[in-house]
Amino acid sequence: MRSVPAKNVAILGSGIFATEAHLPAIAALGDAIQLKAVYSRSNKSASAFARDAQDILKLKNPLDVYHDEDPAASLDTLLARTDIDAVIVVLPITVQPAVVLKALAAGKHVLSEKPVAPDVKQGRALIKEYETKYKTKGLIWRIAENWETEPGHHAAWRVIQEGKIGKVTFYNARVVNYIDENSKWYKTPWRTVPDYQGGFLLDGGVHTIAALRVILPSPMKTVSAFASLAKDILPPHDTINAIVRSADGSHGLVELTWGAPTPSRSSEAGNNITVTGTEGWLSVTRANGAVRVVVKTITRDKDGKATGETEEVIEEKEVGIRKEIEGFAQAIDGADDGLDDPRGTLVDVAFIEAALNSDGAPVDLVELAKV
Amino acid sequence: MRSVPAKNVAILGSGIFATEAHLPAIAALGDAIQLKAVYSRSNKSASAFARDAQDILKLKNPLDVYHDEDPAASLDTLLARTDIDAVIVVLPITVQPAVVLKALAAGKHVLSEKPVAPDVKQGRALIKEYETKYKTKGLIWRIAENWETEPGHHAAWRVIQEGKIGKVTFYNARVVNYIDENSKWYKTPWRTVPDYQGGFLLDGGVHTIAALRVILPSPMKTVSAFASLAKDILPPHDTINAIVRSADGSHGLVELTWGAPTPSRSSEAGNNITVTGTEGWLSVTRANGAVRVVVKTITRDKDGKATGETEEVIEEKEVGIRKEIEGFAQAIDGADDGLDDPRGTLVDVAFIEAALNSDGAPVDLVELAKV
Repeated sequence: MRSVPAKNVAILGSGIFATEAHLPAIAALGDAIQLKAVYSRSNKSASAFARDAQDILKLKNPLDVYHDEDPAASLDTLLARTDIDAVIVVLPITVQPAVVLKALAAGKHVLSEKPVAPDVKQGRALIKEYETKYKTKGLIWRIAENWETEPGHHAAWRVIQEGKIGKVTFYNARVVNYIDENSKWYKTPWRTVPDYQGGFLLDGGVHTIAALRVILPSPMKTVSAFASLAKDILPPHDTINAIVRSADGSHGLVELTWGAPTPSRSSEAGNNITVTGTEGWLSVTRANGAVRVVVKTITRDKDGKATGETEEVIEEKEVGIRKEIEGFAQAIDGADDGLDDPRGTLVDVAFIEAALNSDGAPVDLVELAKV
Repeated sequence: MRSVPAKNVAILGSGIFATEAHLPAIAALGDAIQLKAVYSRSNKSASAFARDAQDILKLKNPLDVYHDEDPAASLDTLLARTDIDAVIVVLPITVQPAVVLKALAAGKHVLSEKPVAPDVKQGRALIKEYETKYKTKGLIWRIAENWETEPGHHAAWRVIQEGKIGKVTFYNARVVNYIDENSKWYKTPWRTVPDYQGGFLLDGGVHTIAALRVILPSPMKTVSAFASLAKDILPPHDTINAIVRSADGSHGLVELTWGAPTPSRSSEAGNNITVTGTEGWLSVTRANGAVRVVVKTITRDKDGKATGETEEVIEEKEVGIRKEIEGFAQAIDGADDGLDDPRGTLVDVAFIEAALNSDGAPVDLVELAKV
């Protein structure tokens, strides 16, 4: 069915997200991605992933396993293989930048997990190096930001573009999360004692900002925020209260916390994104493996007088991870849809960084995220 | 039953709120307040109120009616009466300051509707004049801020004082309201074309700030906000998105809008105040004539390990207006509980004014509300 050869791909990283999110997504893509090899720091983890991959992807041959315990099976050895076209990087946040550069230098296309970098400075440097040295040679580097490829978010964007809710006036994003020591995410060592700004706020918060980037009709321009640590186990920060103004003058609130004291604080928070306009409003909620967009529009009689409101519900399955890998494969084939661009995802990191440092004062996001 | 003589009171203003809120509250207070007279600009409105009052308060004699159409029945004539001890002022926002001063100058105790003044400058001047010229003579001036006297809000405060939710970390107040041309509040001429900052944001928004003042354990100190007009019929502004930091370092979001495009935007917003702490959280919701406080607290075993959470529900009837008048009467009797103090309510006006002018930059609320 495909007119281009399948991509031979290695995955760098073998943690929870590589296993639980990437493997099924690659499986769902059929023959677009041929997973050939895995690299992890430990032999044990890489080997376990290789077994899972053979299972889930129904591979005839097991994955080739690379790890730091044997110099002959190192990451460098993997990257020296000429039969590997591309790599998917799913490593701890602060490890990624060096690995992304190493892979690009080895001539591989790269899909690396969000955030694009642990901070704006490193992100900007990475993007500059990519654009000057590797993009020019035709190498693709995209960021695996699945909230940017999520069809439900694009559906919300289309509703606004079609004018259904009129001119956007204000918006709101609320993410209230409960995390305790038993959370599988908390147990990831690099998340338990993070060596990057924001902790879960960076790791998880960038998703919400990416969704706002997709949905809103105008780029977010200025952010003012207060940030703090509510829950001792989640240093350095777990809570951001932010206001943001977009280039078109609309403005909104962004509430991000992983510091809910009890599960009910999270489940009863009404987590969602709402966008309000002059002719209606919409809410975007993620639940039960789907993104649900509810659109309410003012109905008017022939004289323009409001007579009531209508409701439209759009539900899209959560397939962002499959879409991000598919988009990566298509970009390698020369059909880049412009999503998951490093410059775009740098805005997400910039938002979190701005909010962490704002101390209530406005930060120019556009300036901060300028490469 | 009462050991002190009943207060002979005149009400200045005869609009919706005077009739629908003050009259029933005065009735509920029994013999504490003897309503003797009413003043309004128009004879028609004052006379209609007098009839309602005789009815609702079951008065033997009708109220004395004062209005601007007959110089012999003017406000000055009313205030010259020596048998009137106190006045309740329920007039349009920008009319109130001059009337409050006139009543104080005539030696009357004054309960005046919130906000204390249309802006901080006028509020500060009023308070200074009251404190230097009239308070010293034993005259009482309180602000009818019923959200400050509401028992439900004090219940939430007590929960926090008792340490049930631990140390407060972050909080949230959401007020999303739908107003159209048919609203009885919108139809009040002085609300339709307001001659004061903020429009409904000042008139209604001060209530929410007053509730936060009562509930939170530490004074709000710094506010950053964006403000705008979402709905053409509600100039000058109808929407505030604010972040605020309290003196104890906790911080929160305040979302105020009267610019919801459709009723569902308001009814589905989940309007409430939530306060989150290290050991639990609480929500404060106003509905069906009551204030409902739901408290969730982490339960712990003997080793301090979290085992789950408990829920406690406190429901208090909405009786803030009765309480504010009762507090006024008691203050005249020498038992001032310190609530509804002009200096306190000046903070509410300062918050709205700060939010309207902030443009994303932090404003020092304590400094702004300093008299």
